[in-house]
Amino acid sequence: MTAKRADIAGGNQMKRFIVATALLLAVAAYPSLAESGRDIAMKGTKNAPACSACHGAQGEGQPAAAIPRLADLNPFYITHQLTSFADGSRKNDTMSPFAKALTPAERQAVAEYYAGLPLPKTAPGKPADAAMLTAGAAIAERGDWSRGVPACSQCHGAAGAGVGTTFPRLAGQSANYIEAQLNAWQTGVRRNDPMGLMNGISKKLDKDQIAAVAAYYAALPHALAATAPSTKPMQHAAVTGKFAPPPDSAIPDNDFGKMVRLGENIFRDTPHYAPHYVGNTLQCSSCHLDGGRLAGSAPLWAAYVAYPAYRSKNKHVNTFEERMQGCFRFSMNGKAPPLGSETLVALESYSYFLAKGAPVGADMPGRGYPNLPKPPLPFSYARGERVYAQHCALCHGGDGQGQASADGTPDFPPLWGPHSFNWGAGMGSVKNAAAFIKANMPLSRGGSLSVQDAWDVAAYVDGHERPQDPRFAGSVAATRTKYHDSPMSLYGQTVNGVLLGEHAPPPGGH
Amino acid sequence: MTAKRADIAGGNQMKRFIVATALLLAVAAYPSLAESGRDIAMKGTKNAPACSACHGAQGEGQPAAAIPRLADLNPFYITHQLTSFADGSRKNDTMSPFAKALTPAERQAVAEYYAGLPLPKTAPGKPADAAMLTAGAAIAERGDWSRGVPACSQCHGAAGAGVGTTFPRLAGQSANYIEAQLNAWQTGVRRNDPMGLMNGISKKLDKDQIAAVAAYYAALPHALAATAPSTKPMQHAAVTGKFAPPPDSAIPDNDFGKMVRLGENIFRDTPHYAPHYVGNTLQCSSCHLDGGRLAGSAPLWAAYVAYPAYRSKNKHVNTFEERMQGCFRFSMNGKAPPLGSETLVALESYSYFLAKGAPVGADMPGRGYPNLPKPPLPFSYARGERVYAQHCALCHGGDGQGQASADGTPDFPPLWGPHSFNWGAGMGSVKNAAAFIKANMPLSRGGSLSVQDAWDVAAYVDGHERPQDPRFAGSVAATRTKYHDSPMSLYGQTVNGVLLGEHAPPPGGH
Repeated sequence: MTAKRADIAGGNQMKRFIVATALLLAVAAYPSLAESGRDIAMKGTKNAPACSACHGAQGEGQPAAAIPRLADLNPFYITHQLTSFADGSRKNDTMSPFAKALTPAERQAVAEYYAGLPLPKTAPGKPADAAMLTAGAAIAERGDWSRGVPACSQCHGAAGAGVGTTFPRLAGQSANYIEAQLNAWQTGVRRNDPMGLMNGISKKLDKDQIAAVAAYYAALPHALAATAPSTKPMQHAAVTGKFAPPPDSAIPDNDFGKMVRLGENIFRDTPHYAPHYVGNTLQCSSCHLDGGRLAGSAPLWAAYVAYPAYRSKNKHVNTFEERMQGCFRFSMNGKAPPLGSETLVALESYSYFLAKGAPVGADMPGRGYPNLPKPPLPFSYARGERVYAQHCALCHGGDGQGQASADGTPDFPPLWGPHSFNWGAGMGSVKNAAAFIKANMPLSRGGSLSVQDAWDVAAYVDGHERPQDPRFAGSVAATRTKYHDSPMSLYGQTVNGVLLGEHAPPPGGH
Repeated sequence: MTAKRADIAGGNQMKRFIVATALLLAVAAYPSLAESGRDIAMKGTKNAPACSACHGAQGEGQPAAAIPRLADLNPFYITHQLTSFADGSRKNDTMSPFAKALTPAERQAVAEYYAGLPLPKTAPGKPADAAMLTAGAAIAERGDWSRGVPACSQCHGAAGAGVGTTFPRLAGQSANYIEAQLNAWQTGVRRNDPMGLMNGISKKLDKDQIAAVAAYYAALPHALAATAPSTKPMQHAAVTGKFAPPPDSAIPDNDFGKMVRLGENIFRDTPHYAPHYVGNTLQCSSCHLDGGRLAGSAPLWAAYVAYPAYRSKNKHVNTFEERMQGCFRFSMNGKAPPLGSETLVALESYSYFLAKGAPVGADMPGRGYPNLPKPPLPFSYARGERVYAQHCALCHGGDGQGQASADGTPDFPPLWGPHSFNWGAGMGSVKNAAAFIKANMPLSRGGSLSVQDAWDVAAYVDGHERPQDPRFAGSVAATRTKYHDSPMSLYGQTVNGVLLGEHAPPPGGH
């Protein structure tokens, strides 16, 4: 592999040289976009005043006046906001006339300028006490699934660093500004959010939660030290009639509690805490939302009380530990941690903790995914492609490869290809994927897709190549016969002209 | 070892020859005890009629008339009964005058004669249907712990084969006779039972149970094929207010159920079903009575919901499987089955089955042993020795080595010595042993010993040498410092002139 890469690199050197030379000439000949933008920002145009008058010479904003920091925001995001001010999908009496006064090219230029400014030192936001920061941290990093609110960080990235062109950086933004925007989403004054995600989420938050989460992001990264992990009691039972796992605050402060916390860390950040056993960029919590707490998203508490159990998948009685080994081997495209290893004991301890009070052996309401009716029409890859583009690509990318936070942390999981789950995973069953998608996707809008759309988009996702089934039986045909003999598996079938499994990258990821 | 044994055997040959010759001469010179007994049995004495008139020429008895079979009964047992008839502790209008008419020597002779007769073909007892046999089997082989009744087989041996000189063979005895005797114990007409055991147990049985168990033993060994394992619903909850594990009849008839049944078999007959991991003649159910169901006897259902948990014994978080490994290593003086092995998965499946409906993480009432108050006086080996002789030796033997059934199956567990639990076992703690004994011993009479007696006899039992602690740290002193640094462990202390641990047989049993 190394030799091959070197050859390719060598072959590319000439191309690179040509491109770089061309760019250099272009830059020398014309002022860059950012340089044009600098002029607009600092001096204004004949129709618009200088942006820096309000947003500051360094793009630092004015926290007290709810004027946002612009420095280091994604340029496409800034451009999109200026366009929204201009077309009225984002209303602001000050900004609307200025945005209208700029040409599309000027908007792009000023956006490039601000995007290129270094992140300023965090300006102190509103004073916030530790309790408020802790409450904010809970929503930001864990969500409030009792109200259907995912963690802000699931879209805006770890520690609010921002993801892609759509989900802006929140860390260090002023609390007044964040609070004002959440209120604007909530009341519909602002409605330029993709897929109406923020409109839906903001409506689920109450005034105190909005204030808390705004204070938290304003205080980042300093807030991280001041806050404890979520201590907010979960309210699933009251809201959904389902089992209520205990809050994190109930984790005991002793050696057992340490193991529970390690388990939770592994669950929420698997590649980091269990690197030897993970061969992709997924986390346990990618499929088990709310850290394994959420009913209808294969919650850990429901699974824990259902094992040991016989599984037709491997035709013997599996303990809970062996069941988790399967997750690592297939869904995480890695290798099974040994029985009794700290990784499995920690995950089992965490699951046991979440299941506290659940009756052993019960078929818990909320287990797995809700039953999904059969689709009115047979599922279709082609229709699924359209559903995907409309509802999924925003986060998972048009190529299905997910997105990372601005700081590089994997954020939205890849849905196919070499960095996704492999052909042995349960999510590779169209039925399983459809049930998960219907109940939980798009994030914060579970239940919004039609039954037909859920089946179709599941077929589209599962109709792509992914890492080989680690149980590969010598040929795709033999492996299909042995492990995929179901219309719910597209492995070994030709989809969109591709015989799935035929060009699967090797399993194991590394 | 082999060479040494051969030497000893060689040295013993002359002694053997002398003894054998002497015996031969004695036999030739005098009629044997059994021959004298035959005369009495067949012809009677001048004061007593022939026993065979009622008990039959082959000692087969008369089932319809409730006249017992005598053939193959233990000679000491028969002698004791004749003495009881003579002294009035067993009342029977027919037998009392005849027994009185025999001299002690004549009683012994006739007992030897009948003991030497071969077991007759089973005479058909009362007709009994399968339901009755099944109900009888449940009591005979499992007991009815909801009423504090241990399995008959726990004292009378596997399949009623009889144990030692005290617990007679029941298999093939007539149903009418067994029923009549249980009624006689119940009403106090018969009261020659050791420690009042049968008096206590018979009072806990109702009329139907007595009839059923009598029918079952009469029909053995043929009854075994006709009966299913206990399908009687357990009634612990109603009777004791404690958690009620599901009855065996709730074990599902599928692959998971097979694993549960295997687990139960391992639990109740550990040396047979898990031979590679057991180094003594104990069973899991030796300490966990009623197959791990009995509250106050470390029931499995209470333990199952308490793991994973941190254990100070090994200073880390243990899963339930690892906890069970400890039982094999220490209490069973064997070696730990590997994690994920069929042995552990089966035992975990059985425990999970028993815990069905118990809340995960709950501190279940009935867990472990009931709290035992501190003793009024410091525990004493010397006082314990007296308690042991009075209450324990009957079953566990004067030498603490337990007893086997007449068919050789280990029955009462050895309490010390090379075939008992090793120095690493929890029962080696005087506190644990005292709590277990107070709650559960003597079998069927739990709670009858005083607090002081329980502590004293626990100290006596734990004050004997047993297999070495497998964690042996190079010296007894070092091992005591590292693992036994508690006044509750007598390991490394000098008791009755013995430095315990100093001459411990190696652990592992094999």
